Amino acid sequence: MNDNFQDNVHHGIFPFGTENDSFSQYFIGKSFLASLVDDPKITVSVSNVSFEPGCRNNWHTHNQGFQILLVTGGEGLYQEVGKPARHLRPGDVVVVHDGIRHWHGATSDSWFSHIAITAGTVRWFEPVTTQEYEDANNER
Amino acid sequence: MNDNFQDNVHHGIFPFGTENDSFSQYFIGKSFLASLVDDPKITVSVSNVSFEPGCRNNWHTHNQGFQILLVTGGEGLYQEVGKPARHLRPGDVVVVHDGIRHWHGATSDSWFSHIAITAGTVRWFEPVTTQEYEDANNER
Repeated sequence: MNDNFQDNVHHGIFPFGTENDSFSQYFIGKSFLASLVDDPKITVSVSNVSFEPGCRNNWHTHNQGFQILLVTGGEGLYQEVGKPARHLRPGDVVVVHDGIRHWHGATSDSWFSHIAITAGTVRWFEPVTTQEYEDANNER
Repeated sequence: MNDNFQDNVHHGIFPFGTENDSFSQYFIGKSFLASLVDDPKITVSVSNVSFEPGCRNNWHTHNQGFQILLVTGGEGLYQEVGKPARHLRPGDVVVVHDGIRHWHGATSDSWFSHIAITAGTVRWFEPVTTQEYEDANNER
């Protein structure tokens, strides 16, 4: 756990936002969302998303689109189906291609935040199990 | 001038990159570019762009696309044709719509950096004149 990293989550460049109630059914734990760009003339949305320690979203895909994650604070995890988890720190960049099943979230002991640049539609699948999440945390 | 803001330009979350030689013909002053996403399967590119004090790009448009600027460090300026300049600080967000003639860059006394999310093609026009730039700096 790195306190400087975590400080960037709550006092970072971009707003922390408010509790992400509308997506809570697709997350384990609490996440927070600040919308940065939501414009009908622009084909991507941009948000700053923060996760409390242990929080992660369910397995999901971005269809007819993509997602880019720009890590801005804390320590997090990103995993594509069938691959080891990536441990993420500020400055890391993730590109999620069309249709790739994946999840992302905080590590078990750190807050985490990333900017998400998203195009297309999301399809949600099952939650990340406790075992999958523990394995991802331990793959350091 | 705010030293904390400027520190984020050279020691920010995302890489500072290298001198942006390939675009220097479209800039007055030195700019620096770190590519974050350049992927043929993704319809946007993402870069971290930094400008030395006084540096700005020429008037230009993004066509069949858009540009989003997420300000990450320093103090900068954004101006659309026929409008007053916006003064930009870390956390500010600019959405440039298709075909809107505009320029952006650092203020005269500060370094400046932003993440640029870009789609479509760029068309370059004339440089921002000394008078236009001075006026933009003075519109505080």
